[in-house]
Amino acid sequence: MSDNEPTSAPVPSEIIRLRGSIDNIDAALVYLLAERFRVTRRVGELKAVGGLPPADPAREQEQIARLTSIAEESGLDPEFAEQFRQFIVSEVIRHHELIAAQHKGDNLPEVDTYA
Amino acid sequence: MSDNEPTSAPVPSEIIRLRGSIDNIDAALVYLLAERFRVTRRVGELKAVGGLPPADPAREQEQIARLTSIAEESGLDPEFAEQFRQFIVSEVIRHHELIAAQHKGDNLPEVDTYA
Repeated sequence: MSDNEPTSAPVPSEIIRLRGSIDNIDAALVYLLAERFRVTRRVGELKAVGGLPPADPAREQEQIARLTSIAEESGLDPEFAEQFRQFIVSEVIRHHELIAAQHKGDNLPEVDTYA
Repeated sequence: MSDNEPTSAPVPSEIIRLRGSIDNIDAALVYLLAERFRVTRRVGELKAVGGLPPADPAREQEQIARLTSIAEESGLDPEFAEQFRQFIVSEVIRHHELIAAQHKGDNLPEVDTYA
């Protein structure tokens, strides 16, 4: 520990202001994630009850390329964007498996993680 | 494999429409993430160059409670929302460490993952 280690100094006003932006962005992210899963859940239901096409690897590759491009344009680390995509996909797979299990038991369709 | 395994059947139009929504939402998510890290990077710089207060555990607890509430309201699994928060925090910590290393070498301030 150094002698000038910060203790309970007040948070600078600019940081407080920026925290307000962070809080707003986090709320928007959660609402968007909720909406994304609402949509993929509907797709999962459609696939579970109907004639379901198999996963489309071409679509996955297109999505990776597209999100990488958007990340580069926006200033987000493309590697992080890809990690984020995989994080979302893992949750979509979990939802898909739950939906398919409700509809068909062990006769699961191939997962299309991009719905 | 079953006899009626789907092969190259056309994707139903409702799924194609829903995929368009998924693509739009994904783009919005990436832009928002880019903006979030832009803000936290600025906070990291302010902390690295100035008199930096320590991490505020109370703020972290407030954020967890707040995001859990938003998740419940929006229909997102609160456990997933918490996993998402931790995923973001791990990237913020990585950014923070990079910024602090650029400014102070090994004299790093305590990390405030919520900036």
